[in-house]
Amino acid sequence: MPNSSNSHQSKGQPTDRRTFLQSAAAAAALTAMPGWAQAHPDDFSAIRGEIEKRHDEAVKRLQTWIRQPSIAAENRGMNEGCELMMEMLREAGFSGVKKMPTDGQPGVFATLDAGAPKTLGLYFMYDVKQADPAEWSSPPFEAALLDKPGLGKIIMGRGAVNQKGPEATLLAAFHAIRGAGKNMPINLVFVAEGEEEIGSPHFPQVAGNPEVAAALKKCSGVFMPFASQGLDGEVSMFLGAKGVIECELTSSGERWGRGPRKDVHSSNKARLDSPAWHLVEALASLVSPDGNDPAIEGYAAKARPLSSAEKKMVGEAARRMNEAEAKKLLGVDHWVHDVSWEQSLELLVARPTVNIEGLVGGYTGPGGKTILPGKAVAKLDLRLVPDMTAAESLALLKAHLAKKGFSDIDVNMTGGYDPTSTPADSAVIRAATAVYKNNGIDPVILPRLAGSWPGYVFTGEPLRLPAGHFGLGHGNGAHAPDEYYVIESGNPRVQGMDGAALSHAEYLYELAQVGSSAGSQR
Amino acid sequence: MPNSSNSHQSKGQPTDRRTFLQSAAAAAALTAMPGWAQAHPDDFSAIRGEIEKRHDEAVKRLQTWIRQPSIAAENRGMNEGCELMMEMLREAGFSGVKKMPTDGQPGVFATLDAGAPKTLGLYFMYDVKQADPAEWSSPPFEAALLDKPGLGKIIMGRGAVNQKGPEATLLAAFHAIRGAGKNMPINLVFVAEGEEEIGSPHFPQVAGNPEVAAALKKCSGVFMPFASQGLDGEVSMFLGAKGVIECELTSSGERWGRGPRKDVHSSNKARLDSPAWHLVEALASLVSPDGNDPAIEGYAAKARPLSSAEKKMVGEAARRMNEAEAKKLLGVDHWVHDVSWEQSLELLVARPTVNIEGLVGGYTGPGGKTILPGKAVAKLDLRLVPDMTAAESLALLKAHLAKKGFSDIDVNMTGGYDPTSTPADSAVIRAATAVYKNNGIDPVILPRLAGSWPGYVFTGEPLRLPAGHFGLGHGNGAHAPDEYYVIESGNPRVQGMDGAALSHAEYLYELAQVGSSAGSQR
Repeated sequence: MPNSSNSHQSKGQPTDRRTFLQSAAAAAALTAMPGWAQAHPDDFSAIRGEIEKRHDEAVKRLQTWIRQPSIAAENRGMNEGCELMMEMLREAGFSGVKKMPTDGQPGVFATLDAGAPKTLGLYFMYDVKQADPAEWSSPPFEAALLDKPGLGKIIMGRGAVNQKGPEATLLAAFHAIRGAGKNMPINLVFVAEGEEEIGSPHFPQVAGNPEVAAALKKCSGVFMPFASQGLDGEVSMFLGAKGVIECELTSSGERWGRGPRKDVHSSNKARLDSPAWHLVEALASLVSPDGNDPAIEGYAAKARPLSSAEKKMVGEAARRMNEAEAKKLLGVDHWVHDVSWEQSLELLVARPTVNIEGLVGGYTGPGGKTILPGKAVAKLDLRLVPDMTAAESLALLKAHLAKKGFSDIDVNMTGGYDPTSTPADSAVIRAATAVYKNNGIDPVILPRLAGSWPGYVFTGEPLRLPAGHFGLGHGNGAHAPDEYYVIESGNPRVQGMDGAALSHAEYLYELAQVGSSAGSQR
Repeated sequence: MPNSSNSHQSKGQPTDRRTFLQSAAAAAALTAMPGWAQAHPDDFSAIRGEIEKRHDEAVKRLQTWIRQPSIAAENRGMNEGCELMMEMLREAGFSGVKKMPTDGQPGVFATLDAGAPKTLGLYFMYDVKQADPAEWSSPPFEAALLDKPGLGKIIMGRGAVNQKGPEATLLAAFHAIRGAGKNMPINLVFVAEGEEEIGSPHFPQVAGNPEVAAALKKCSGVFMPFASQGLDGEVSMFLGAKGVIECELTSSGERWGRGPRKDVHSSNKARLDSPAWHLVEALASLVSPDGNDPAIEGYAAKARPLSSAEKKMVGEAARRMNEAEAKKLLGVDHWVHDVSWEQSLELLVARPTVNIEGLVGGYTGPGGKTILPGKAVAKLDLRLVPDMTAAESLALLKAHLAKKGFSDIDVNMTGGYDPTSTPADSAVIRAATAVYKNNGIDPVILPRLAGSWPGYVFTGEPLRLPAGHFGLGHGNGAHAPDEYYVIESGNPRVQGMDGAALSHAEYLYELAQVGSSAGSQR
């Protein structure tokens, strides 16, 4: 899931879009409307009316979706989650909604032929991260509507912002366009997977299916609905994302041939090797002594440094975003190596990483247990930048371990993929920028997201399509407890679900326009 | 809990004691009887009859005890477990059975004044290790009686051998002596704790209570009932045990002041320090690069090398014990550094250790979760040999971490204590040896147990009493799934519960005798 790190400095008083729209001053309103809306004020007004009319229906749809857990990591509710999303697609006007089997969880393929000149790809996920109910203030699969001070009415639940909330918001836009008696301005090719949260191991099987690939080839670009606004309403845009490898390193007596195969009494440490110590030593070899810089041999060799244009973007972002707020949100006092705010953003954008997600070895319950464990596991993620690839990086990790004396340690890549990049002047980016600007938001543009999404399936060979995220709206807590998405915003700078749905409608119309002048722009 | 590592080589055909006792050839039988039994053949016979008569009652008592979980590490059933043991003591003839409050779980103190010239101390524990029912073939708190091929009828459950089985066996001996109309041959001072499995943090408060200390001072020694027989019926005796420190090392952004205080999205590794990597680096500094030799500065400086007498014991043990069987039981192919069998036993007896019991950091569930954890924990145990002490070793660990740049890592000692040693010619050891030999068993004697028990409370200042374990019988699986204790042995060389109870009766009478000639032998 992308991590947007939205922490903007408020500069002046950005336009309060909601107040604007609700004002009776049509002329003033029109200056804030995107091109298509200015050209078709009646369409715009009718769609907005439908969105508001169908508000309760859209919220109920999102609640229904959140209440169906679909967690690939736990193989929980996957079939039900897939079927539910397929049903929602049919209701939203898609035809030929197909379940696409893979070697893992199924994907989904669907199309909506509007008879329009342009075609747009949509990428959805129907899986969500795990959730431990004990950590939540409201049950993660209850989808409760709550009042959150400073935010307004929110929906709380796993998937609220990542990604069911924004996805249900786009569906709401589809219903509103149809409900207003309008034609969809652009044809749609829909692809989805149920394994985004485990590193999309089988999504290439969906996108690579001949029928799907042929449909995607007709697209001018692909986008995923996203709640882009920070707490202050500002937006960050990303011209790509880091790649990722998620893997488990397992040290075991069984594979090592030393130490015990099962847990034994810890007194035997005096005469037995320890798979847990073996893992610790292997891990220590992967990074610099302070744990910060990757030390896997050759790992960062292909990492492309930031271009001067990219450095300029980061510099501009550093000026516009608020370091103190970012540190507060993360709960940190220092950046790594005590670098500056601008350098921290450069690292975030350009630095490959080796991160420990989790350590699990031997006895993990309360207190102690005097065992020498037969096995210990480290869960790692590695973030990759262009021109690194997932396959090469995995091979380098394995070669490094072998060279350092840890060839017995099992490296199980559970998911991951290459980095993704999209040109700043591609249709999906230009249209997004236009809609944000027409809404009074000047987006911060960054060379790439520090998180990852499987955009490489679209931006890489053979499709080479531009691909990105779009959407107004705000939420937080992806991968964490108390994940939420704003339904009715209490902050005029931040859009609720209706405002976000309207931004999606604007985006579709804008893409239909932009596409006509920059359709070949990939 | 002591780990006896019983793996004896069968030498010749040791006397089949059970067959012997059951034969009508009284003269032949008498030669196998210990001193007191030879002097009082009627007593011996009457007590044996009572043990057999009360077999079902004794088994039921043990079942009742196992069915009451009492797990200090989980603070589960502790009060109920304490009360149950107190009730069992009253039934066995103890008076003034008192619950002894501590800063943790309560201990128990009781006495049995037989008007005898000598007094013996008893040490019990009423807590057991944790148990995960999913790992057991019979539920751990069901105390099922099962037939186990090659062993006979066993009782399976948590605490079966560690330590409720042997303790219930000693209680059965008390009931039989009284049931036979005999006087207890020796006065008893009973002390127990409920925190043995978490490192006995508060047992000194029990033994140090003025009333308890005054009672213990009158003892010629202290013993804990123990199932000493290996699968082949042979017995190992230990003249002490290693000390231990159990501790948790916690690396957290909170204490460190670097990295996040809570879990954050893993993409932030590019710009944030990682408490998990910090822990890995700290751990790696504690041992040699192969994970085998402690590298805590000054840690082993006070480790006393084996004396030539102790080396001789180990050499003799290596000749008599079976390396292949030991490796098979442990599930290992190699000793550390590929040392010989004799060297492996020397290490076991004489080498201080730094062991990882468990690693718990960040996400520990199935698959991955892209977080940078705010905290990571390693559970360690350190085994200490004379003249190391727990307090000094803990201080050295903390000083080492501080010197290496890890002063922020929290070291929480959850339990532990000093090593313990008892002279070979003390009463408790001489009496045990005599009873074993009279039962046709020539015990292997080792300088110390590689595991730990809080014998230092008795052998250290101010009491300076000899202390050890005793008992025939067999069980296995302490701290592991499918823990069992043999109730009716299918192997004539191994005693079931009745034979073990009889050995306890013999031991009490033997101590009453030995005590008179070596009462001052501590």
